[in-house]
Amino acid sequence: MIKTPYLLFLGDAPDQLAAKVGQGIKDWRPDNAVGQFRMEGCKADLGLTDMSLLDAKAAGAKTLVIGVANRGGVVSGAWKKVLVTALEEGFDLASGLHGLLTDEPDLVAVAAACGRDLHDVRVPSVQYPIASGVRRRGKRCLAVGTDCSVGKMYTALAMDHEMQARGMNVTFRPTGQTGILITGDGVPLDAVVADFMAGSVEWLTPENTDDHWDLIEGQGSLFHASYSGVTMALIHGGQPDALILCHEPTRTHMRGLPDYTPPSLEALRDMVLPIARFVNPAAKVVGISINTQHMSDGDARAYIAATESRMGLPTTDPFRYGSAKLVDALAAI
Amino acid sequence: MIKTPYLLFLGDAPDQLAAKVGQGIKDWRPDNAVGQFRMEGCKADLGLTDMSLLDAKAAGAKTLVIGVANRGGVVSGAWKKVLVTALEEGFDLASGLHGLLTDEPDLVAVAAACGRDLHDVRVPSVQYPIASGVRRRGKRCLAVGTDCSVGKMYTALAMDHEMQARGMNVTFRPTGQTGILITGDGVPLDAVVADFMAGSVEWLTPENTDDHWDLIEGQGSLFHASYSGVTMALIHGGQPDALILCHEPTRTHMRGLPDYTPPSLEALRDMVLPIARFVNPAAKVVGISINTQHMSDGDARAYIAATESRMGLPTTDPFRYGSAKLVDALAAI
Repeated sequence: MIKTPYLLFLGDAPDQLAAKVGQGIKDWRPDNAVGQFRMEGCKADLGLTDMSLLDAKAAGAKTLVIGVANRGGVVSGAWKKVLVTALEEGFDLASGLHGLLTDEPDLVAVAAACGRDLHDVRVPSVQYPIASGVRRRGKRCLAVGTDCSVGKMYTALAMDHEMQARGMNVTFRPTGQTGILITGDGVPLDAVVADFMAGSVEWLTPENTDDHWDLIEGQGSLFHASYSGVTMALIHGGQPDALILCHEPTRTHMRGLPDYTPPSLEALRDMVLPIARFVNPAAKVVGISINTQHMSDGDARAYIAATESRMGLPTTDPFRYGSAKLVDALAAI
Repeated sequence: MIKTPYLLFLGDAPDQLAAKVGQGIKDWRPDNAVGQFRMEGCKADLGLTDMSLLDAKAAGAKTLVIGVANRGGVVSGAWKKVLVTALEEGFDLASGLHGLLTDEPDLVAVAAACGRDLHDVRVPSVQYPIASGVRRRGKRCLAVGTDCSVGKMYTALAMDHEMQARGMNVTFRPTGQTGILITGDGVPLDAVVADFMAGSVEWLTPENTDDHWDLIEGQGSLFHASYSGVTMALIHGGQPDALILCHEPTRTHMRGLPDYTPPSLEALRDMVLPIARFVNPAAKVVGISINTQHMSDGDARAYIAATESRMGLPTTDPFRYGSAKLVDALAAI
């Protein structure tokens, strides 16, 4: 287990989206984050107290969590001085990057010399099975997006929060580094070998009681050329009963793909349903989650109302306006 | 490079399909296969001469190629005595299984003691990029199937054979162990980490001249719960201009999934086209490949004619009746 609380390392994040790991921890486990550490030129800000390593240590932080992701997910050479010093000051390190802390000889050597731990939460710790496709009891909900980074994890976490408050039988099932860092458990899906992707999702969401809901963290998008295969495996491994469509209306091009415009919610609905129904004929789209973080309150409410009317489905921004509508839709299944 | 010719090891294959690696080598590089080695209870037969290790050695074989795959792809303990003896008799070993020869301490130790090589062609030898989705010059053709193991690789290899004969500018691009063992090059796609799947396909099929065709080996099926994510990555990474639909009409359930009936060719067409067109608006289905290996000549011809009429697309069994129709369709693009 990773020792809490954390100091969230934002490094030289080029923009706010790059710090979504740190943002997720801060938003969903605020007690676990004593502060943030930002380097010269950092363009992200979580609104936490900026702390030096010594300040954070004095405030009780046990682990420096890398709360920033760069394209390709490598441990940047520019971060090394801070990471090495953190180990020497008595912090463990935790990371969800593709590039592993444990593949960096300097970090391994210093950690060993100082008696500190390196946690790579993206390394699968389980030999996952090949997916069987067999139907299993219990209900599952999956958020799918018109693009990457549109709020799929936040949607599931907001629904989890609401369902827990209502006393429903629910488990949030993380499939990415942030979710795993938040809950301490899950499948690091984008680091799983291709043949075992769907099987890892079956493993994560096993048979359960009829009243139980798994809220599966979504990944990628069926329309995202880089990651669509991961999304496909989530749908076929998760066999969702309920799908939530996620969209970020101000996105002018898909994340990391300047040549691509995100598809419409209608296009997403029409693509995902036949895929989901092949493994679960009862699959249906039950609601829509709009990420309105870049819109005014008036614009956001108007967009949500227009989308709800156009699509004929309960629509909200679950982070901004609560997830009650989406949970009502699940409860009605 | 793997030394040729080979002795094809079929082990205790439970059925003929399990020996498809050996079958592929025998069919497409017959000069490379001096014979087959079958154990007690083997249910596969490639029609090659059954040879002992000593017979094969005398016939000039240099490498024992594991031509059989079991579910999960492990190096079976039941094979070990033969594999160890082969090393001692002077053979190298080559395998495309998920379970690695180089992870078996006994094989590693004996190979070292005897000065032999262990080749695991399923281990990615390249750090593939994240897919960029950028359009690139040159043309690409991808075979997609209603199920796994319906003839996608054979379709591409038959077309490659015909296109070479016509003097067309073409490259077969293997994405699986058999193809890699046949050509000595390619991407072991089902062993690639999820995030890099589509990028590995972009890497395999780079920009080329306008008249050049890549024939990309297909994998899995968009409808196969275990492997659909791999197929998705092939489509989005490969950006095919031309799609060939592959089908095996006698299949009563999907490979390894007793609860699932293969979809219709119409369902495959309707699912694959919007997926392919999101990354390549010019993508079209140009033909249909029917695997008629379990049908009489009369039944096969009747099925092909009926399919061609119903679907309005050139249809053939490229292995049994030649791939000229499919190549004509490509040449017309």
